[in-house]
Amino acid sequence: MKKKCLADQQCPLARGYNVIGDWWSLLIVTQISLLGLRRFGDIQHSLGMAKNILSARLTKLVDEDILRKVPASDGSAFHEYVLTKKGSDLYKVIVALRQWGEKHFCDGKPGNAFLADKAKQKRIPEIEVRSQDGDVLGANDLMIVTKTGRTAKAV
Amino acid sequence: MKKKCLADQQCPLARGYNVIGDWWSLLIVTQISLLGLRRFGDIQHSLGMAKNILSARLTKLVDEDILRKVPASDGSAFHEYVLTKKGSDLYKVIVALRQWGEKHFCDGKPGNAFLADKAKQKRIPEIEVRSQDGDVLGANDLMIVTKTGRTAKAV
Repeated sequence: MKKKCLADQQCPLARGYNVIGDWWSLLIVTQISLLGLRRFGDIQHSLGMAKNILSARLTKLVDEDILRKVPASDGSAFHEYVLTKKGSDLYKVIVALRQWGEKHFCDGKPGNAFLADKAKQKRIPEIEVRSQDGDVLGANDLMIVTKTGRTAKAV
Repeated sequence: MKKKCLADQQCPLARGYNVIGDWWSLLIVTQISLLGLRRFGDIQHSLGMAKNILSARLTKLVDEDILRKVPASDGSAFHEYVLTKKGSDLYKVIVALRQWGEKHFCDGKPGNAFLADKAKQKRIPEIEVRSQDGDVLGANDLMIVTKTGRTAKAV
């Protein structure tokens, strides 16, 4: 599928889409982030992806500074993939999507596993979008403001 | 590209990926959610997508109960697409991805437009992942806990 290039658009959302590229890429980041996988074979086995597709996605993620390719931690000839700061910052997107999935496919239940904070090992609550004053905002409480001060269509 | 079906997996994140399908689908939801577009032609023009691809994605999003097809609000023969509750709940994923884009492509600046709360029209702060006790959690503060109580690899 030919995709319109979004990289030169100003919208940071479109730029985010363009770098991540597709869900495969975010799934790969999730495998590394949540499951701690670091090696090509482990990621390939976990996702059941064709090797050539995984290879292309990993190369793109390294090019986009989301992953870094490093020597294997055990000193072997393998190499491993680790998240950069830009890559690990995707955790909020992953948490938001996971919680959306829990809410709409599992009646708000966490499935076979749940995300917890390391310190207390308690399930984390749903993330919230808040105003500067700390008010919780729903989908209908948001709007787009342009730099000229003109307000665009509300969410 | 042949994709492994994730629908029968327990992981709500994988199920979320599977329903959204690809970034095109989330881009369509964004056009409806953030820009208020409702008609096929407007969405097609805004995204520059091929009509057959847009048509297939819209059908999938209606099938997945993310969009609903309704008669045109002006009483004309057209129809329009509106978000269901399940679809509008994706706003947190959209906000998370947009803010990630701002942080890593625009030095934390909002580009030509920014998301604000309707009441005060002030730019909303970055969303936060928090513990049950309200502590702000970073990517390294999260872990997966399985239902048996066994803890998986930390984030």
